[in-house]
Amino acid sequence: MKHFIGIDLGGTFIKGGIVNENGEILICDKTPTQVERGAEGVAENIARLACDLLEREGLALSDIEGLGIGSPGMIDSARGNVIYANNLGWENFMIGEKLSSLLGGIPVKIGNDANVAALGEVKFGAARNYSSAIMITLGTGVGGGIVIDGKLVEGNLGAGAELGHTVIVHGGAQCSCGRRGCLEAYSSATALIRDTKRAMEAHPDSKMWEIGTLDAVNGKTVFDYAPVDVYAKEVLDSYIEHLACGLINYANIFRPEVILLGGGVCAQGDNLIKPLQAIMDKEIYAGDKGPRVPILIAELENSAGLLGAAALLM
Amino acid sequence: MKHFIGIDLGGTFIKGGIVNENGEILICDKTPTQVERGAEGVAENIARLACDLLEREGLALSDIEGLGIGSPGMIDSARGNVIYANNLGWENFMIGEKLSSLLGGIPVKIGNDANVAALGEVKFGAARNYSSAIMITLGTGVGGGIVIDGKLVEGNLGAGAELGHTVIVHGGAQCSCGRRGCLEAYSSATALIRDTKRAMEAHPDSKMWEIGTLDAVNGKTVFDYAPVDVYAKEVLDSYIEHLACGLINYANIFRPEVILLGGGVCAQGDNLIKPLQAIMDKEIYAGDKGPRVPILIAELENSAGLLGAAALLM
Repeated sequence: MKHFIGIDLGGTFIKGGIVNENGEILICDKTPTQVERGAEGVAENIARLACDLLEREGLALSDIEGLGIGSPGMIDSARGNVIYANNLGWENFMIGEKLSSLLGGIPVKIGNDANVAALGEVKFGAARNYSSAIMITLGTGVGGGIVIDGKLVEGNLGAGAELGHTVIVHGGAQCSCGRRGCLEAYSSATALIRDTKRAMEAHPDSKMWEIGTLDAVNGKTVFDYAPVDVYAKEVLDSYIEHLACGLINYANIFRPEVILLGGGVCAQGDNLIKPLQAIMDKEIYAGDKGPRVPILIAELENSAGLLGAAALLM
Repeated sequence: MKHFIGIDLGGTFIKGGIVNENGEILICDKTPTQVERGAEGVAENIARLACDLLEREGLALSDIEGLGIGSPGMIDSARGNVIYANNLGWENFMIGEKLSSLLGGIPVKIGNDANVAALGEVKFGAARNYSSAIMITLGTGVGGGIVIDGKLVEGNLGAGAELGHTVIVHGGAQCSCGRRGCLEAYSSATALIRDTKRAMEAHPDSKMWEIGTLDAVNGKTVFDYAPVDVYAKEVLDSYIEHLACGLINYANIFRPEVILLGGGVCAQGDNLIKPLQAIMDKEIYAGDKGPRVPILIAELENSAGLLGAAALLM
C-alpha cells in the first residue's frame, strides 16, 4: 500500500495527514501556520508537522511517495511556486523546492486550495465513481474546481477555474472582482443573505420577520420560510434560477459526468438539488439527446483539502 | 517524416488531404458526400477519397500513421462513434471501426468538426506557439473548441464545448438552443445583423440607409458606418461589449494562453480585436496580477478542419 502526505495550508492553521492510496486518513493533525514567521518559517512548520505525523505512525520519509499541498492564492503548479497569496503575504515563493529540500528530497506537488479540494471530492468523495467533474462551492464567495480525466485543469500559471467570476447577468449586481453580474454576485451565501434582507426590508408583512432582526438572517432563512411566505419563496426561486443558469453554462461548456456543489447552502440537500436538477434536465444543450449531468452534494467537508493534496501525487 | 490523412466531413462535400507532421498539406481534394447513400456509403466514399489521395501521392496505406475525421454532430471520440448528426441523418454510426476495416486496419480517430478545427489552429495555425487555447467561431451561430495541453476537451460523449450556449444576459434574447441570453444570441453574425436592422428601422435618419434596403445589411455594415453614424456605433459598441463579456468569462474559467476568434466577423481585424483586448485586459480576474490572455484571429480558414483531423493522431 502506497502512502502520501497531504497538507491543507490556511492562513491560521496548517492541517496535515498521512493518506493511503485508498484515500484513508491514517493520522491527521494541525499546527498554527504562524504567517508572521515568513514563508521560510511556514515551510519549516509544514515540514515539522509532516515529520511528526510520520514518527507517530511509525513511518520514515522513505516510506512515503511524496507530499501534496493545497495553498491559497495563485499557484504555478508546474514549478511548485506560490505566485501570489494575499492572506499569507507571499509572492513568488518556491515552496515545492523548499519543502523537498527540508524533507530529504521527496516529491512535492502543490495546487490552489479550492482546486485541490475539488480533486479530493473526485478521487475520494461524492464524485469518486467519475473521472470528470466540475465543483462549485457556495460560500462567502463562489469558488470552483475543474477535474477532467482525473486531473485538475488549473489554467495558465494556475490562474483559471475562477468559476464564480463568470457574468450571467450582463450589467447586473456588483461583484467583488470588479465586474457586474458574476455568478458569485447571485449564488454566494453572501448574495442569498443580501437578497433575503432586501425582501424583508421591502415587505414588513413578511413572515420572515419572525426571526427577529435583519442580523438574524442566514443562508437557511428563505429555505425555512419558502413554504409559508411568498416573499421568501420569491427570493429562493430567484436564487435557484440564477444558480441553475450558471450550472447549465458549465454543463454546456464541459459536459462533465457530474457537477458537485459544496459550501454551507448545501445543507439544504434535496430542497436545493431537486429544483436545480429539474431546470438542468430541461435546459441543458440538446436536451435528452446528450448525456445527463447529475448534480451532487460534496461530502468530504473539511478533509477534502487534505485528501486532494495527497491525490496530487496519485 | 510521418504522414497522416485528414478528413473534413460535411453534409455536401468530403474534403480530404495527406498531411505531414509539420502540418504541410501534400495533396488535398474533395468528393461529394452523397448523404443519400447512407452511413455505410458515405464511409465508402471517404475510404475511396483516402485511397485516391494516397495513390496520387505515391504512398501506400502502410506509409500512413492513421486517418482523422472531423464530423458534424455529437461524437463519442473514445469509441469512434457518431452518436447523432442531424445534417447527415446518422444515429450511432461506428465510423471509426468501419473506416479502419475499409482501410486495412489503420488507426482512425474522430472528433466534432468545430472541436477539430480548433485543434488545427492550435497545432498549426494562429495558436501554434501555444498548447492551451479557447477558440470561438462567430458565424451563423457561435461555436467553439477547447484545447488544453495540446489535447481537445470534448466533454462526456463529446457533448461539451458548446461555447456559444452559455447565458451572459439572464432572461435576455432568445437563443436557438431554447434558453434566453446565450452568447450566441449576442455575438453571432446573425445577432449582429439582427441588431443592425433594428437600429436602422428605429432610426430613419441613420447614415446606414445609404446601403439601400435592410436586405443589404451584413456583418460589415456597422463596422463601415461606426466612424460616421452614431446608431452604427451604438450597435457596434454593444456587440463588442457582449462579446468581450463572453471572452472574459472563458478567460476566467480556463485562463488559456490565448483566445482565438474565427468566422467572417474576424475580417474586421484590429477594429474587432483591439477594443475586445482593451476590455479583457481591464476586466479579467485579478487584473494584471495574473498572466495576460491575448486575443488572436484564426488563420487556417478552410484547412483548419483537415489539419485538425490529421492532428487527432499526432
